[in-house]
Amino acid sequence: MVQQYSSALLEKAVGEFSKLPGIGRKTALRLVLFMLRREEGDVDQFVDAIARMKREVKYCRVCHNISDTEVCPICSDPRRDASVICVVENVQDVLAVENTQQFHGLYHVLGGIISPMDGIGPADLEIDSLVQRVAAGGVKEVILALSSTMEGDTTNFYISRKLADYPVKLSVIARGISVGDELEYTDEVTLGRSILNRTPFNQ
Amino acid sequence: MVQQYSSALLEKAVGEFSKLPGIGRKTALRLVLFMLRREEGDVDQFVDAIARMKREVKYCRVCHNISDTEVCPICSDPRRDASVICVVENVQDVLAVENTQQFHGLYHVLGGIISPMDGIGPADLEIDSLVQRVAAGGVKEVILALSSTMEGDTTNFYISRKLADYPVKLSVIARGISVGDELEYTDEVTLGRSILNRTPFNQ
Repeated sequence: MVQQYSSALLEKAVGEFSKLPGIGRKTALRLVLFMLRREEGDVDQFVDAIARMKREVKYCRVCHNISDTEVCPICSDPRRDASVICVVENVQDVLAVENTQQFHGLYHVLGGIISPMDGIGPADLEIDSLVQRVAAGGVKEVILALSSTMEGDTTNFYISRKLADYPVKLSVIARGISVGDELEYTDEVTLGRSILNRTPFNQ
Repeated sequence: MVQQYSSALLEKAVGEFSKLPGIGRKTALRLVLFMLRREEGDVDQFVDAIARMKREVKYCRVCHNISDTEVCPICSDPRRDASVICVVENVQDVLAVENTQQFHGLYHVLGGIISPMDGIGPADLEIDSLVQRVAAGGVKEVILALSSTMEGDTTNFYISRKLADYPVKLSVIARGISVGDELEYTDEVTLGRSILNRTPFNQ
């Protein structure tokens, strides 16, 4: 590529920023110039925080969530209900479920979902370790909280087969019309499922 | 603030990213998780590029554009016309003018424009050094290429006063309707100016 800026150092920094997802060269330049205007100490802090995180962050030995310690704060919290495991695709989904404040069990982060199109098979995911957790006993329910897509359904089905031999209750998060959605604009598959999975009114 | 993530290292990195302009906590988390998935070497490269740029980048002694050397590549290029100086607000504006490929002179980066609302006065800008460049001789024309705002106009006026005693041609970039704009939707001030500043048809 032809050099665009009057400084190769600037060029390099812009190039690095524009490798990040959703950041083009214009935004990258804006971010880099912002960095140039900041105090030296602030930039050091930024750089150190990223380098340290990359170097030191661990994945929880039990649930594979991001953690600073061998076992994450959720898995090691005695107030959480260890008999219920919520299976999610990734770290963001743990945050999403945590934010609802409706779940008090433990998690299991698969690290993706089965997607033949992207070359991701069951062996690439933390499915065996989930089966081991269930096999170790003490787990009464496994909640599958994956995306409502073909890939999510495939992964749900695969996990259900793997857990079929264990005395554990398997459930899937409810699918239906979103809170605040108008019926008129709900797609027919969602609406159909929400009718099939109707719940008693006063629940 | 309450800790939101299961890792303080992650928390810190997200916090640092979300200090950047236009990046909220959700985007910051996405960027940080992307960093986590990258190769160690790639992250080192990212971090080094920013740290090095912040430490080593200079401002050109002549035009105050960003540069790796004492004098920037534009100022030291013998093919550029040193008798014309284009005055711009900041580094991005140098890039914007360069991208037009219509200007072959040198630049002068003010580092801002006069803005009493933001507490920026003439003394905060590189106006004296511009006057010195003109006083040193050899400059035939100064092109004022500032934003078409109240602050831009004020700065233009201030510079014109400062340069009044020197035998230098002072010009302002043309203001008129943008290429591709429809007359119907052009504001009346712009349209009025574009009529006053009309140019011979075959130019």
